[in-house]
Amino acid sequence: MSAEALLAAAKAKGVMLATAESCTGGMVSAAITDIAGSSAVFDRGFVTYTNAAKIQMLGVLPATLDAHGAVSEQVASEMAAGARDNSAADITVSITGIAGPGGSEHKPEGRVCFGLATATGVTTQTVEFGALGRAQVRLAARDHALKLLLGAVEAYL
Amino acid sequence: MSAEALLAAAKAKGVMLATAESCTGGMVSAAITDIAGSSAVFDRGFVTYTNAAKIQMLGVLPATLDAHGAVSEQVASEMAAGARDNSAADITVSITGIAGPGGSEHKPEGRVCFGLATATGVTTQTVEFGALGRAQVRLAARDHALKLLLGAVEAYL
Repeated sequence: MSAEALLAAAKAKGVMLATAESCTGGMVSAAITDIAGSSAVFDRGFVTYTNAAKIQMLGVLPATLDAHGAVSEQVASEMAAGARDNSAADITVSITGIAGPGGSEHKPEGRVCFGLATATGVTTQTVEFGALGRAQVRLAARDHALKLLLGAVEAYL
Repeated sequence: MSAEALLAAAKAKGVMLATAESCTGGMVSAAITDIAGSSAVFDRGFVTYTNAAKIQMLGVLPATLDAHGAVSEQVASEMAAGARDNSAADITVSITGIAGPGGSEHKPEGRVCFGLATATGVTTQTVEFGALGRAQVRLAARDHALKLLLGAVEAYL
């Protein structure tokens, strides 16, 4: 999966993209903007590393963070929706996970939650990449986010 | 210059960082968050690829964009100041440039403007990296931004 394919598909459909990243810290937006001409399809990125940033930049509810933790599909959902509400993008992706090192009893290293927001709503999913190490988890999460965006762009009417 | 050195210095001084990126598209925040433990010193990143994003996320003035263009020290200054005003960061860096391919008569490929905001004000500078190609200009701009942050952290009282 390449960012080139995503860019070409988004251009063909005329859709704008935005990102809301926690554990990937800007890697998804960096991959998209690595391609010349990306300004035609990429509006902006929110790198919401702290909980305060998630609340202030994306409108994630403190109650959602308290109830489910930052690494949860509930927070991923609110991040993706917030990115769409606060941008000119048609499609947004969110990423929040535990890149490691370390996890907790309930949330293992390598768990990453994704959200995808379009005009028809928000979908979420959790992927357990496993304890691959911080760099590999982040790369895998980046590539998965690009794949999710591509799928959404291809399904875009 | 490594992000590790920046992270260690920021931890030692107890300062929080944030980024406002245009042409680097998230590469600076990605480099900082590549390091385990970065959540102690990195608050958030604004990837403001479009002019609308610069205005809405950072408070860059439309008049400044009109008068000087997005790649200007004036806009870099407002981006860095806006990132500081809209985050919990003590020190922020901004990057806006022409990664290429292509430039214009007045703004050549490889020109990148940087801003650095601290409690004492904002400084700016322009670096002509030259027509190294898009990937190399972006990498050079990323590394320069990290160096600017390190210098500001080391000077932080």
